[in-house]
Amino acid sequence: MQSFLPTRFNSRPAMSDIFAKTRRLFDLPDNLVYLDGNSLGPLPKSVAERVSREITVGWGEKLVRGWNEHGWMDMQMEAGNRVAGLIGAPEGSVIVADSTSVNLFKVLTAALAMAGDRRKILSDSGNFPSDLYVAQGVIGTLARGHQLVVAKPEDVETAIDGDVAVLMLTEVDYRTGRRHDMKRLTERARAAGAVTIWDLAHSAGAFPVDLAGCNVDFAIGCGYKYLNGGPGAPAFLYIRPDLAKNIAPALAGWLGHEVPFDFDLDYRPAPGIDRMRVGTPPILSLAAFTSALEVWDGVDLAAVRTRSIELSELFIAEVEARCPQLELASPRDPQVRGSQISFRFHQGYAVMQALIANGVIGDFRAPDIIRFGFTPLYLSKEDVGRAARTIEKVMRDRLWDTPAYKARAKVT
Amino acid sequence: MQSFLPTRFNSRPAMSDIFAKTRRLFDLPDNLVYLDGNSLGPLPKSVAERVSREITVGWGEKLVRGWNEHGWMDMQMEAGNRVAGLIGAPEGSVIVADSTSVNLFKVLTAALAMAGDRRKILSDSGNFPSDLYVAQGVIGTLARGHQLVVAKPEDVETAIDGDVAVLMLTEVDYRTGRRHDMKRLTERARAAGAVTIWDLAHSAGAFPVDLAGCNVDFAIGCGYKYLNGGPGAPAFLYIRPDLAKNIAPALAGWLGHEVPFDFDLDYRPAPGIDRMRVGTPPILSLAAFTSALEVWDGVDLAAVRTRSIELSELFIAEVEARCPQLELASPRDPQVRGSQISFRFHQGYAVMQALIANGVIGDFRAPDIIRFGFTPLYLSKEDVGRAARTIEKVMRDRLWDTPAYKARAKVT
Repeated sequence: MQSFLPTRFNSRPAMSDIFAKTRRLFDLPDNLVYLDGNSLGPLPKSVAERVSREITVGWGEKLVRGWNEHGWMDMQMEAGNRVAGLIGAPEGSVIVADSTSVNLFKVLTAALAMAGDRRKILSDSGNFPSDLYVAQGVIGTLARGHQLVVAKPEDVETAIDGDVAVLMLTEVDYRTGRRHDMKRLTERARAAGAVTIWDLAHSAGAFPVDLAGCNVDFAIGCGYKYLNGGPGAPAFLYIRPDLAKNIAPALAGWLGHEVPFDFDLDYRPAPGIDRMRVGTPPILSLAAFTSALEVWDGVDLAAVRTRSIELSELFIAEVEARCPQLELASPRDPQVRGSQISFRFHQGYAVMQALIANGVIGDFRAPDIIRFGFTPLYLSKEDVGRAARTIEKVMRDRLWDTPAYKARAKVT
Repeated sequence: MQSFLPTRFNSRPAMSDIFAKTRRLFDLPDNLVYLDGNSLGPLPKSVAERVSREITVGWGEKLVRGWNEHGWMDMQMEAGNRVAGLIGAPEGSVIVADSTSVNLFKVLTAALAMAGDRRKILSDSGNFPSDLYVAQGVIGTLARGHQLVVAKPEDVETAIDGDVAVLMLTEVDYRTGRRHDMKRLTERARAAGAVTIWDLAHSAGAFPVDLAGCNVDFAIGCGYKYLNGGPGAPAFLYIRPDLAKNIAPALAGWLGHEVPFDFDLDYRPAPGIDRMRVGTPPILSLAAFTSALEVWDGVDLAAVRTRSIELSELFIAEVEARCPQLELASPRDPQVRGSQISFRFHQGYAVMQALIANGVIGDFRAPDIIRFGFTPLYLSKEDVGRAARTIEKVMRDRLWDTPAYKARAKVT
């Protein structure tokens, strides 16, 4: 871990110094305020050269020898250990592999196998629809009478009862930023005999996460949001270390085998988390992600959280003062919020198109939410001020009220 | 599809001209004969610039807009259609996604769901162990009494009976190169009421494949072998067009949803092959693969096959004339062989290490097979001659007989 230069008057660097330094690790276009790092994190400067080296030296010169000589075979664990350090997980308990959805399939099938005769998967309507789809796919495939119960977020705690096999939640609501109390709900589930799965897609890299301290059974999450791993970066998967040895993977693949290169006809899982590897990972995307994770060297996530709240509070204050038409969709209390701020507006899609055309990138989520992510590694108070002034202009001058902005594109 | 310049005396170009042209599309190290394109295809020259552009322009400048403006959202279909053209599949019947193993899981669960009460999955001992692992994982997960029957390759045909739910085979044996008769076995399975899954990992790009003509139900295959898609390139998946609409995907993901950006809480599969998409694909690796597929523009796979047989026959003749210690492990008849030649030798691992140290890269497969892939796009008769002379030297001078070469590394 590299350390920061101390400021002149203090052995701990001032927070603005920390983030001025991390800001320089990213390539961001000029004249743009990027508030969509919770959808696709921006490009860390180290990535282009790293991927170029994998292509020209690893692939081009080493060829198949790259698996040994260019570190490809161990990269899933290497990236996993870097992620582990950001989510309160011990070394060797996280791998980077596949997509978030595929990883959820792996851990949900494993969790249900641990849950004995119980048949209820409890989730909430604040979860990613994609996570609910995975559960629906698992239920249809197992065909053993499992049931997905989708509670309201505020009703989850009381819905945890002795019938729940698996509590499957995303910590931060992708639309509103509402944050669940992971420790409390995990304890509650554990007391009720349920297995827990947390999706950390909007948590990892956004604020401190303490999987071990919360005694979470399984977790998954995304590489391309706050971890800046690049478009479609491989995802991560955590298993509480004592659980791994008893899991019979649904997705049994050769890289999860105890001895992949013996080419035995029978699957025998590797001892620990390695068994959750399946097929050969996409090395170029994985290398990009691994390189992107270096921006976290020496970064204190508690400082990230403090600054994220500062930026978010400033944003709310500035926008509410300027734009009475917008209704805050996020919790007002920062303690129950992730690192994003959302507002509601009936023409939210058109507003976001106008904002993007005016150099402020956030995103829209149906039906009426405009969403802004706050990522201290590369965002300053000046960025927040500029964003608020642009939103004011778009709302005041009704810049959104053009047919071109109102037409819905395929991807928003 | 681009066409080739005619030679002076003939409206069809001479074969050597075709392959001299394709050879120039690859970056290959000097002084190396690369006979391991069946494990990791070499680097097409177009890839580095293409991936660099995805990173600096797509990710760095377009940021999240890259999904629409840099073609990321459609890239799985674009690559899939290019692969379709190489395996006798109609447009819109192939996607590129996930890994070969994950894709096998998808199609095997779909195939078993089609197979009614039948419980037998028939495969053979010439299949990739990884494919058998996937089947074992499916069986354990479904827990409905399915059974994996692993016949000898030569016994598969007679083992197809009215109990077989799914015939799951790899066309070309990864060790010996022995090739199944896809048309005959598929017809036999169909007549017996079994669903067919073919793994084309060592077929696609190696010789003409005719999935539609053979009436195959499902196929999967690898992007990084004969298709040169790069280390861990995403894999492909084919479904016979009339089958797709009835499949309820086990791996139900947001990109397989009918309307991904509506964020409905309920999964409704997209109309066709799109439903086999799951999570967000690794764009950098996918872009590399898409770019690599351009080398096939204007290439006639029948010519590839003819040249592959020429090179392979020459290799067998040269090696057998020079190295009586080596026993041919591949079929002698080219009609029942893929595009590789294997020999057996009790110290095969050490022989391969010595060959690699002397500039000939093939690979070793336990317990005693040395394997050489013949890929006309970038291999010449001169390469074959040089390889044979190097093998002769290694065997004659016992260059393999050193402790360093005999030590088994993790990856061979």
